[in-house]
Amino acid sequence: MKNEYPVQVHWGDCDPADIVYYPNYFVWIDKATHALMAAHGLSQALIEQRFGIRWFPIAEASSRFLRPSSHGDEFTIVSRVESWTDKRFTIVHRGLKHGTLLFEGREARFFGGPHADDPARLRVVPVPAEILAIFGKPD
Amino acid sequence: MKNEYPVQVHWGDCDPADIVYYPNYFVWIDKATHALMAAHGLSQALIEQRFGIRWFPIAEASSRFLRPSSHGDEFTIVSRVESWTDKRFTIVHRGLKHGTLLFEGREARFFGGPHADDPARLRVVPVPAEILAIFGKPD
Amino acid sequence: MKNEYPVQVHWGDCDPADIVYYPNYFVWIDKATHALMAAHGLSQALIEQRFGIRWFPIAEASSRFLRPSSHGDEFTIVSRVESWTDKRFTIVHRGLKHGTLLFEGREARFFGGPHADDPARLRVVPVPAEILAIFGKPD
Amino acid sequence: MKNEYPVQVHWGDCDPADIVYYPNYFVWIDKATHALMAAHGLSQALIEQRFGIRWFPIAEASSRFLRPSSHGDEFTIVSRVESWTDKRFTIVHRGLKHGTLLFEGREARFFGGPHADDPARLRVVPVPAEILAIFGKPD
Repeated sequence: MKNEYPVQVHWGDCDPADIVYYPNYFVWIDKATHALMAAHGLSQALIEQRFGIRWFPIAEASSRFLRPSSHGDEFTIVSRVESWTDKRFTIVHRGLKHGTLLFEGREARFFGGPHADDPARLRVVPVPAEILAIFGKPD
Repeated sequence: MKNEYPVQVHWGDCDPADIVYYPNYFVWIDKATHALMAAHGLSQALIEQRFGIRWFPIAEASSRFLRPSSHGDEFTIVSRVESWTDKRFTIVHRGLKHGTLLFEGREARFFGGPHADDPARLRVVPVPAEILAIFGKPD
Repeated sequence: MKNEYPVQVHWGDCDPADIVYYPNYFVWIDKATHALMAAHGLSQALIEQRFGIRWFPIAEASSRFLRPSSHGDEFTIVSRVESWTDKRFTIVHRGLKHGTLLFEGREARFFGGPHADDPARLRVVPVPAEILAIFGKPD
Repeated sequence: MKNEYPVQVHWGDCDPADIVYYPNYFVWIDKATHALMAAHGLSQALIEQRFGIRWFPIAEASSRFLRPSSHGDEFTIVSRVESWTDKRFTIVHRGLKHGTLLFEGREARFFGGPHADDPARLRVVPVPAEILAIFGKPD
């Protein structure tokens, strides 16, 4: 499972040093995950309607930043599911510009819903068989 | 070096599941780093004016998310410099609510400026002696 | 009904010209409205729980920008209900720094919930008597 | 001068009522202005490099919101220069979905740079002849 998500760096995405304000990378990484899933038939609407679960809550997120980008720059995020178990999956996101690695991010997510006993916690939802079929065998 | 930074979770910080949209945690973590530095006499204005460097570019950022927060919630980010070398320093940020750990983030930053030969890269600036005196001896 | 809401302009709020990226003013204006209501006993939690309505959807928002702000600046938003009818109310927000007007914004909001016949529209909810008592007589 | 700018409403753009958090409309409106200019040969890079001015500071922004949008929705912003003088220009932005008007925004902008006497103010820059030729005769 792999997908390419294009990013255009906008004036308002950058800070006074004309470098992307780093939380914005995680906005793009999050959007790249949605795009990766949708490209494999797992649109958010389908997941909500068919499985009654509300998307993929985040368990961990990280990124190494190798080269900065400025307003007007364009790059591509190449995203793929790196590993997954029956409980969570990890997506790796590589920001690339003409073959140069700009950043490499990772997200660990699970399928989730509200916790029955404690609304302040999130509950892990078993991965539906239909999604298993798309992901393939867990690690 | 340690500091406490209070966060109020606002309506607009949360997604349709009424959970904080996760890139916002990195906005708060970034602000908590600025607050940590300012609390130790290293305001951004001082660093810019005295040392001619533009703050602390990010090399790595990460967070584990243990419990979600919703609009109206309040918590505290307890930030401290976890380790540092003459090249970079790591700040750990613990989101705490009544003693419960909500998330734990880490940032690796360096003192930076534009690269003389290649404006698309960032240059590492040696840590000024005055800042060394505040941080203490490197690891 | 009047309230003062303090703003600190952060590095990440500003664009490469080191001027606040203007949509951020509307984030602060929105937060200033929540603060205004909360200061008069109308916290969002109370409105949701007691009246079963989900806050104050926006009908119109505007701002004139007179003087820019940069990272590190601080100012105060002075907010008050300027006028109101039984259907909507208008809040005026004046951004002030040492008596100088930086910007002046206005929001027209109503009490709202989902529309029964068409979920793509919002329904106007009659202003509860308890809130009427706080606002005073309509214009 | 007219342009169409497509918007996909993302999960993170929406609040707990699953309605777009309204400051995000101004982010899209701002991007639509950049796209309108670029579509007529006035990319930000060209304006910066040829005319030495830093884009189009905002003097006023406003929007009426007629129908809400939720995550997964798509619409188009149709933007055009509504009027202009030698000092400022007004862009109107109409958010449209299948012919239905969702919102109508307006921005008044000028060509600007830092003020020579007072860096806390912005200076109005005369509209360059090359841009005049694109805009046509002022009102």
